[in-house]
Amino acid sequence: MGKNIIADHAKWPRLEDAIFKISGECKKAIAKKGKDKIINSTLGTLIDDDGNIIAFDSVYDTLKNMDKKDIASYGAIEGDKEFLDLVIEKCFGAYKPNGFIKSVATAGGSGAVRHTIWTLSGVGDYVICPNWYWPAYATMCEEYNREFLNYEFLDENFEFNLKEFTKALDFSLEKKDRVVCVFNSPANNPTGFSIEDSMWDKILEIIKDRADDGKYIAILLDVAYIEFAGDGRQKKFFQKFGDLPENIITTVAYSMSKSYTAYGLRSGACIIVSSNEEIANQVFDSMKHSNRAIWSNITHAGMNILVDLEKDEKKKKSYEKELEFYRIMLEKRAKAFTENSKKVGLVTLPYFGGFFISIPCKNSKKIAEKLKEKDMYIVANKEGLRFAVCAVSEEKCKISPKIIKEVIDEINN
Amino acid sequence: MGKNIIADHAKWPRLEDAIFKISGECKKAIAKKGKDKIINSTLGTLIDDDGNIIAFDSVYDTLKNMDKKDIASYGAIEGDKEFLDLVIEKCFGAYKPNGFIKSVATAGGSGAVRHTIWTLSGVGDYVICPNWYWPAYATMCEEYNREFLNYEFLDENFEFNLKEFTKALDFSLEKKDRVVCVFNSPANNPTGFSIEDSMWDKILEIIKDRADDGKYIAILLDVAYIEFAGDGRQKKFFQKFGDLPENIITTVAYSMSKSYTAYGLRSGACIIVSSNEEIANQVFDSMKHSNRAIWSNITHAGMNILVDLEKDEKKKKSYEKELEFYRIMLEKRAKAFTENSKKVGLVTLPYFGGFFISIPCKNSKKIAEKLKEKDMYIVANKEGLRFAVCAVSEEKCKISPKIIKEVIDEINN
Repeated sequence: MGKNIIADHAKWPRLEDAIFKISGECKKAIAKKGKDKIINSTLGTLIDDDGNIIAFDSVYDTLKNMDKKDIASYGAIEGDKEFLDLVIEKCFGAYKPNGFIKSVATAGGSGAVRHTIWTLSGVGDYVICPNWYWPAYATMCEEYNREFLNYEFLDENFEFNLKEFTKALDFSLEKKDRVVCVFNSPANNPTGFSIEDSMWDKILEIIKDRADDGKYIAILLDVAYIEFAGDGRQKKFFQKFGDLPENIITTVAYSMSKSYTAYGLRSGACIIVSSNEEIANQVFDSMKHSNRAIWSNITHAGMNILVDLEKDEKKKKSYEKELEFYRIMLEKRAKAFTENSKKVGLVTLPYFGGFFISIPCKNSKKIAEKLKEKDMYIVANKEGLRFAVCAVSEEKCKISPKIIKEVIDEINN
Repeated sequence: MGKNIIADHAKWPRLEDAIFKISGECKKAIAKKGKDKIINSTLGTLIDDDGNIIAFDSVYDTLKNMDKKDIASYGAIEGDKEFLDLVIEKCFGAYKPNGFIKSVATAGGSGAVRHTIWTLSGVGDYVICPNWYWPAYATMCEEYNREFLNYEFLDENFEFNLKEFTKALDFSLEKKDRVVCVFNSPANNPTGFSIEDSMWDKILEIIKDRADDGKYIAILLDVAYIEFAGDGRQKKFFQKFGDLPENIITTVAYSMSKSYTAYGLRSGACIIVSSNEEIANQVFDSMKHSNRAIWSNITHAGMNILVDLEKDEKKKKSYEKELEFYRIMLEKRAKAFTENSKKVGLVTLPYFGGFFISIPCKNSKKIAEKLKEKDMYIVANKEGLRFAVCAVSEEKCKISPKIIKEVIDEINN
């Protein structure tokens, strides 16, 4: 009888950690055969050509030179004011939307996604999301008892599937009065896809059309990979989220994990955009309440790093240079992978930036298994394989498509 | 109509930040009159006699010498294995309870309290807690729609009020099948009170008696201040939580905030103790699920610091020496305060350790207001005043009781 000591809503089987498992196998293979022989496409962080995680000097010099008192002390519950102001500027760049904008400090982008789902939907409401998605979204919906509804991400022309999105939206709003629409763009994980500006117009047209009286639509923009998705103009779409009807609200999950190579510092923000000041403030109040009720406040050093790098012109420049260098490294790797994919006839989903490129295929798990025999370790999901350009050198990106293509043909033909 | 965009369960007024407000006023007063003139009893961190936050060299040298790759990288979702093992040893010291013990990494002690309430109670269940408590408990119960039920902490002899505790427990179990009992001991915030070992026997006797078939009792031990509550023997009570019936479960909220002066690093753990291995594992699974659904993983550097300080004998010694030094500093300050309280006839609640001493009184807010005129800034709560021995020098601790006593007499007589 003791087994029911866990409340029903909180009973979950042990979280599968498929990535952790294959990553461990890969490490063993590297230890045995040497890193040059193995292609490690299991990681989700920027890795240099020698297999080491990239940690920006600008970021970690700032941390190491930080007064220890500023690391030790608590940040404010909602986040420190300077951080909250600057993170809005950093996120939107030249394209801040019109409206009332507030931000709340969160534990990475994860915390911002969590806050959005918690505050802007209720039990049983739908969270709609393309079928190529970051698995933590599903875990969050489980945890809070929201319905996680997936729709086909891309149409036959590899464009955002407006029709399937609309069907999911209509289905949700027919059943319930509120819905959260998750968009992980630009530079989607796991595909690298970005929704184009003209497509955003069409999406917003539909959302506005469906936002009848009594219906509430939350748009969650998870932009974790945005700094690796172009030279700044990829932020232009943000402007479209200004001046929307007040029963549509936009939140942006901003993460320092990728853009500052600060994964382990758990720093980020939820940025709230509303055309109504009171609503923006009330969502802020709700999320501040959540902060106190979960983690109290976030890593102070993380907030300080962002502030220090923004306020010192020299540091800012060196950070931006470093980011640019690694963004271009990533572009080169991705180019090597996609060009060679074309050469060997390996179908990949359109890549516009970010850490991953996806290969749609059946039997993805079998294929990933077989690829181990070819010394390639790669993450399989329901819809295909996730190739980690963030973690594989340009040289290996060149040779990988052929290896993958051969195994797919072997298994699926 | 847009205002209902927030789901009903998540609507909260802006969190009052009374401490932040008075702390700001105090800072202004210091800027104007000089720090020597002002008694700042508003802070909740260890502060040296010069008014600066204490950040252990052993901790921050470890951080500053840490390979930046180990700071940048993600920790495991549930926490890194070495950390999870060592945190159990660190927490229990020589007094590990008998049974199956698992730990989950959490964002500070806050995260562990959150996980306990979330996993081990359901909507509408009672969380029972003495009426001198850390306000975040109440915020968490609000957030998750649990009933936060307070009982009179101490009886007329200033001993733990077993009768009132029992009444609250019985009330809760009459209404519902599960209950969470929060104990912030040893070195309670805000009182410094510790429940004695013999009293724990009585409490556990009652809990065991009430744990009938079909009832589930969770015991949450929030031990945030434990390292400042004695020389190790204060941990003896932990052994009592071994071999309990399997429908009683114990969780320990372990925080690195105070014991490592690592407030801003948001590192801690929820330690699960059960006499049934499967239950311990299932609670772990539930909390790992929560981790993924909230913050993904916690600050990697925090976990690494604990591991580094445990594994290097020299570093460990220097950390322990530093902790000892400041524990004694705190003891001296507290002694100065309590001795002088006795001298002037100021009633204080029994103090056994920790960061605060409480003065029960009516009209606490008025008194705190009046004390500002005497250049003392102090936090008022419903039941009295919270004097921060963590933040006030020994010299000032000596003179403070008289100042407080005079104002209490002035206002209340």
